[in-house]
Amino acid sequence: MASMPSIYLDNAATTPLDERVLEAMMPFFTGNYGNPSSVHAHGRNARVELEKARKKIASLLCVSPGEIVFTSGGTEADNTALLGAISAYGIQQIISSPLEHHAVLHVVEQASRRLGITLSLLDVDANGSVNLEQLEQLLQKNPRSLVSLMHGNNEIGNLADLAAVSQYCREHGAYFHSDTVQTVGHYPLNLQELSVDAIVGSAHKFHGPKGVGFLYINKAKKIPPLIEGGSQERNRRGGTENIAAIAGMAKAMEIAQENQEQHRQQVSALKDYFIRQLQQAIPGVTFNGLSGDPSRSLYTVLNVGFPPNEATRGMLLFHLDLAGISASGGSACSSGARLGSHVLQALGADPERENVRFSFSRFTTHEEVDYTVTQLKGLYPGQ
Amino acid sequence: MASMPSIYLDNAATTPLDERVLEAMMPFFTGNYGNPSSVHAHGRNARVELEKARKKIASLLCVSPGEIVFTSGGTEADNTALLGAISAYGIQQIISSPLEHHAVLHVVEQASRRLGITLSLLDVDANGSVNLEQLEQLLQKNPRSLVSLMHGNNEIGNLADLAAVSQYCREHGAYFHSDTVQTVGHYPLNLQELSVDAIVGSAHKFHGPKGVGFLYINKAKKIPPLIEGGSQERNRRGGTENIAAIAGMAKAMEIAQENQEQHRQQVSALKDYFIRQLQQAIPGVTFNGLSGDPSRSLYTVLNVGFPPNEATRGMLLFHLDLAGISASGGSACSSGARLGSHVLQALGADPERENVRFSFSRFTTHEEVDYTVTQLKGLYPGQ
Repeated sequence: MASMPSIYLDNAATTPLDERVLEAMMPFFTGNYGNPSSVHAHGRNARVELEKARKKIASLLCVSPGEIVFTSGGTEADNTALLGAISAYGIQQIISSPLEHHAVLHVVEQASRRLGITLSLLDVDANGSVNLEQLEQLLQKNPRSLVSLMHGNNEIGNLADLAAVSQYCREHGAYFHSDTVQTVGHYPLNLQELSVDAIVGSAHKFHGPKGVGFLYINKAKKIPPLIEGGSQERNRRGGTENIAAIAGMAKAMEIAQENQEQHRQQVSALKDYFIRQLQQAIPGVTFNGLSGDPSRSLYTVLNVGFPPNEATRGMLLFHLDLAGISASGGSACSSGARLGSHVLQALGADPERENVRFSFSRFTTHEEVDYTVTQLKGLYPGQ
Repeated sequence: MASMPSIYLDNAATTPLDERVLEAMMPFFTGNYGNPSSVHAHGRNARVELEKARKKIASLLCVSPGEIVFTSGGTEADNTALLGAISAYGIQQIISSPLEHHAVLHVVEQASRRLGITLSLLDVDANGSVNLEQLEQLLQKNPRSLVSLMHGNNEIGNLADLAAVSQYCREHGAYFHSDTVQTVGHYPLNLQELSVDAIVGSAHKFHGPKGVGFLYINKAKKIPPLIEGGSQERNRRGGTENIAAIAGMAKAMEIAQENQEQHRQQVSALKDYFIRQLQQAIPGVTFNGLSGDPSRSLYTVLNVGFPPNEATRGMLLFHLDLAGISASGGSACSSGARLGSHVLQALGADPERENVRFSFSRFTTHEEVDYTVTQLKGLYPGQ
């Protein structure tokens, strides 16, 4: 009996660890176990590696090592950046969008309710493009604002024009945070050229380990810690530093950046191929947001709208899963709750269609795409 | 040339990883990489292991799996328990002690300042024993209190009478949190017998990985998340679950608990031996807090007060470090800042003496203790 295929097309949720990353982590599991905050030899041996990792990540972003704060992941980093700014800068208005990840949206909604801060979510069109004119108008009315707009949308792949947003924010003296979880490691991010106060990264989105991320915060901005308990990370994040994971993240980011253009070409070609194969196999297929447009969306994400279908009856993901194909209906973070996607809702996507997010990595193969298209074609026999 | 000795006597700061723990983590680094919150096969494979780990830890504490929330460590767990209780229960008074770890002390100090909540730090005597009569009086005056008192002190090893504290709290309807970071894995903690609302664990204190911990929170108590962003951990902690580290923590706790009595006897005997050898080698040596009393202190911690000494001139730790011995002056979390120990200050310890915390694990040997005592004797030639 042939073994069940196991095809992973959910790389926006998490990615497999690169074996070179594991190699970089192993010394901390087998020998170099000191607490980086201890001043003795065991501590210093760990501290040296901690600061090497910080320097590496800082240099890849063209910032100073002191501007990098290690966290337990992208979610903690987003929470820290947002709540810290609100607390430190007397923010009176928060401007964001309905397409943000819950690590941003839930935080700003809560803060708004609890502290009575005005929350303005920008209008989006049917493609998920955010209304930047409205951003400028809101900033003119109330300059003391916190703006949080993501770089690459995790569900529909839309890429934001960070340069334009950052210019508006600079002109109006607003604090600009961007959730860059889907683009760190996948796109060049030169923070010398781009004026942004805070961005975040999550290692497991670029073949690093889970449980670690970072917050970049501009050195001119001082924010209080979210997690208190020690003088680690220059008093910006208490808790023993997760040195194995941090070293792994630095290695993963180095690998990602060194081969970024090649990975990008390879994965983009795969996504294009998937689009063409789908269009041939299933008439009426559409692509949500801008994910069908290679120049304006993440090359790793394709959000497909399938026509309503008697054979699957709203259970397309379940049928794919039975065929050994792992894809997603929305972000993994809320999929456990089986709520609909708040992103597709905000776009006014047709709820009668079956929307599936396929997301790719440099480990995804053409054979996997072919198999997936064949299975989909089998589920749409009438087409 | 003989190689430099490398003797690790700072196990209260962090412990080396047990190789069986690493084995338990490896499958998640090499194959089982799914996001536990994804509903497809890759996600379910990770989810199964996540829930196994939760069940294991819950059963070792005699609680329900739903009462365990995974965090990035003890510090995050303490922050979550304290800030959550303050926010959910309209706390009017916080009762704690000056001997708490900064993961508690800084949080309650901040909350008190920011929210205008009365903070009462209980009196401690010269041995670091907390005044429980005062606790009862304060609870009588103001029952709507949050009490946070640690189980085993990380610097001086003092063990608190959790049963007595929990009874006072129950009688007066107070919310009781205990920082149990130094005792989880080292002492039996049966939460069916002990009435406590929240305790915390940190894996790297019992030969598990860094970057992971847990919060136990009584099922009757509902608190908001500290880190928001998804429905993970039943909406109590957003962020992709760090499944490799969580599985490692469960394994470490299982190993610790299975062999607890044997580890305890072994390490206690080593500590007793160290005490006797020190007393013989260096007249005038004292033991801070209750750490010299085996029945009332952690068997892993010995805080030694050395007489003032011309040869070391306040640099004893530095001299030990030069001799290849890693020990500590206080908690690692604040040692980077090179501030004095707030715990020894609260005890009124003699600042002219040199105070060193030695802390042991089941991997510490008699030979290491002998070498350490010989080196110390060499530094106190006149004695």
